[in-house]
Amino acid sequence: MGKAAQPPSGTRDFLADDLRRRKHAFDTLAEIFERYGFDPLETPAFENLSVITGKYGEEAARLIFKILKRGIHESSGQADLALRYDHTVPLARVIATHGSKLPQPYKRYAIGPVWRADRPQDGRFREFVQCDIDTVGSHSPLADAEIVLALADGLDALGVEGFTFNVNSRRALHALLDVYGVTPQAGTTVLAILDKLDKVSPDAVAKELATGAAGLPTETADSLVTDVTADDRDVIRERLSSTEGGTAGLAEIDTLIQLVTDAGLPADRIAYNPSMVRGLDYYTGVIYEATAPSYPGSICAGGRYDKLVATLGGPDMPACGGSIGVERILAIQSHETATPRGLDVAVPALVDEASVATLAAQLRREGLRTGVFLGTSKKLARQLKWAADQHARVVAILGPDEMAAGNVTVRNMTTGEQTTVAQAAVADHVRRLLADR
Amino acid sequence: MGKAAQPPSGTRDFLADDLRRRKHAFDTLAEIFERYGFDPLETPAFENLSVITGKYGEEAARLIFKILKRGIHESSGQADLALRYDHTVPLARVIATHGSKLPQPYKRYAIGPVWRADRPQDGRFREFVQCDIDTVGSHSPLADAEIVLALADGLDALGVEGFTFNVNSRRALHALLDVYGVTPQAGTTVLAILDKLDKVSPDAVAKELATGAAGLPTETADSLVTDVTADDRDVIRERLSSTEGGTAGLAEIDTLIQLVTDAGLPADRIAYNPSMVRGLDYYTGVIYEATAPSYPGSICAGGRYDKLVATLGGPDMPACGGSIGVERILAIQSHETATPRGLDVAVPALVDEASVATLAAQLRREGLRTGVFLGTSKKLARQLKWAADQHARVVAILGPDEMAAGNVTVRNMTTGEQTTVAQAAVADHVRRLLADR
Repeated sequence: MGKAAQPPSGTRDFLADDLRRRKHAFDTLAEIFERYGFDPLETPAFENLSVITGKYGEEAARLIFKILKRGIHESSGQADLALRYDHTVPLARVIATHGSKLPQPYKRYAIGPVWRADRPQDGRFREFVQCDIDTVGSHSPLADAEIVLALADGLDALGVEGFTFNVNSRRALHALLDVYGVTPQAGTTVLAILDKLDKVSPDAVAKELATGAAGLPTETADSLVTDVTADDRDVIRERLSSTEGGTAGLAEIDTLIQLVTDAGLPADRIAYNPSMVRGLDYYTGVIYEATAPSYPGSICAGGRYDKLVATLGGPDMPACGGSIGVERILAIQSHETATPRGLDVAVPALVDEASVATLAAQLRREGLRTGVFLGTSKKLARQLKWAADQHARVVAILGPDEMAAGNVTVRNMTTGEQTTVAQAAVADHVRRLLADR
Repeated sequence: MGKAAQPPSGTRDFLADDLRRRKHAFDTLAEIFERYGFDPLETPAFENLSVITGKYGEEAARLIFKILKRGIHESSGQADLALRYDHTVPLARVIATHGSKLPQPYKRYAIGPVWRADRPQDGRFREFVQCDIDTVGSHSPLADAEIVLALADGLDALGVEGFTFNVNSRRALHALLDVYGVTPQAGTTVLAILDKLDKVSPDAVAKELATGAAGLPTETADSLVTDVTADDRDVIRERLSSTEGGTAGLAEIDTLIQLVTDAGLPADRIAYNPSMVRGLDYYTGVIYEATAPSYPGSICAGGRYDKLVATLGGPDMPACGGSIGVERILAIQSHETATPRGLDVAVPALVDEASVATLAAQLRREGLRTGVFLGTSKKLARQLKWAADQHARVVAILGPDEMAAGNVTVRNMTTGEQTTVAQAAVADHVRRLLADR
């Protein structure tokens, strides 16, 4: 197989321990989303190309994996299908497809792979899992609050410590531009520069605002940066309150923070951040993202996007949702040591195969994860080495002497201790050893 | 979205109840395979095209979904990747990739989608889940027995009743051709015709054997069919025993049956069937398949294929494995009524949002699947209808009167009974109602 004997660039084989850890994380998140009344949704790995085309902007379009037509059409070199690029476009399509069959509002979670032909690099893959929850069909701030609470519970359950949510609002950001006299043309650039305040010094940001495409007067740039970075948020709140949009934006931010803290999220875990700007354009209301010490960038984000479903080809419905960066979290956590899942009990094959099979079946019926030696060696030492390689915690040895007496010798692989027990009692004895650890 | 608002031809959206049922089945099977010491494996959705090409024969090759090159290479119309067509070729590639990192022997299960551009038709999909277990690196008959036992446990756990395994062996089939004087050229045709004996009458099979490509002398065709269909298997056993290959074939069949029945599979669940021929050419030893009343065709199959891993580009290693037709089983079972997973408790929104959020949070902290009314209506009747639509078993009503008194009114949606309890006691009360059913 040679060079071809690798998974495609940017993809991974998940072997046992990795895969178990991932599945556990996904199941944990699913359980939390279920508790919040979200329903699971799984769409096909690919969509009709027309559903995907034109939905992601020019740059992203180049990252879409397209599937060649088949049969006599293959030689046309044309594609008719495309691999899922995210879970949002399929969600809009599902609402268009199943409309009335769906609960109203439709609250769904999707945890599954998406595919993007990004340049593979450290921590960025071409096949990776996205974990989304969304509520389509509700204007209620309770819907936004539910998303934030479910995301927070998710982070907690994944063992992410010390995370905090920054909250802002598209309306508050628009008001900010108004209040500081930023022209609509410069708006996007100014917001993109402001968004760097979590990484870059205020001075550098002010300087950048006063130059190039942003081109704010130095005084404006300085006061904007001073105001949005002031520990006392009252300064910026007061300025924003001078406009209707600013008042409305602050109100939706405050409502969200109030609802989630009343519901139990500690107040020091969530705060208004006037310079937090989510990159995507489609948000229409509150926006939020969470960061945590020892995790790079944001590990979770979301907001309200009342126009998106219609833009993506679904019906015109209000919506809000968020996403947990589960791959990013798993990548950081993988550096911690994880214990491989070994066998509960290994059964050497020292006597006739039927007796070995019978003993293994007896242990498996009791729910014990049981492996049988399937090699050719008849030597106990060799077979014990195999058991150790399998991380077996116990070995149940059935040799000719044990056979004759109706016994099994049970070896504790941690201590090396061996006890001979009646064959009928072996599962109980193994259980006791496993419980002792 | 119009016509495009459908999932691609041959694929399905899995909505909540269907998806939960599927996940439960897959998790159940995974748990059984784990108990047998199999490790999970997940490979990427696509492989390098060179890994897939030439592995499936000409007819199947047309069913492969190929992925177009990207960026500046897109216009070439060429493909460089292909969607997974089964789990076996990726397994061979994984063994080539990870060789020494894998346990020895390597026992793995794979439960995940594969993609084939078959003509979509009733019960045949272009995206469907295959569920495979395989052991690579062991010649031991215990390895074959483990596969059969794990498959049988899997069928049991899926609720498939009355299944039986038919066992045969490639060697026994070769001997059969020898003994009845079938030429090597006619061999494949003869076996394919014999394999129809589970659907077609012995007379018709005998007639077909005596004509066309098979072209056996009438007498030979008649005696062959009579012998393989005789209730008394001793007739065919005696004939096969006259050759070395036949003796070896019968011995491997008997060993397998002996091992799995000793391990607890009821003897009436497995039998030698001299005319059972698995379609695929790659088997080298025992072969088996299971059928069950009310399920069409075989629901599970497997065997030993000692040359396949090498043929597919992996190292030369003995292997055996089997597969459960989980899609086929799920399709039949879906006709049975399944209860949708409703909400444990629905919370109407009749008072201020913060109080509603607080009550919902209290219930969710207790692990109850809780939904909050996210619509605009303030009418209790409308909100109770929503709760009923969500299949809520209980509704926790917080109105102005309850607020004032620190109470919640708990409504049993089955009986319509309502009880007013202190807010602190609401989760306990809901639990009691849920347990009562």
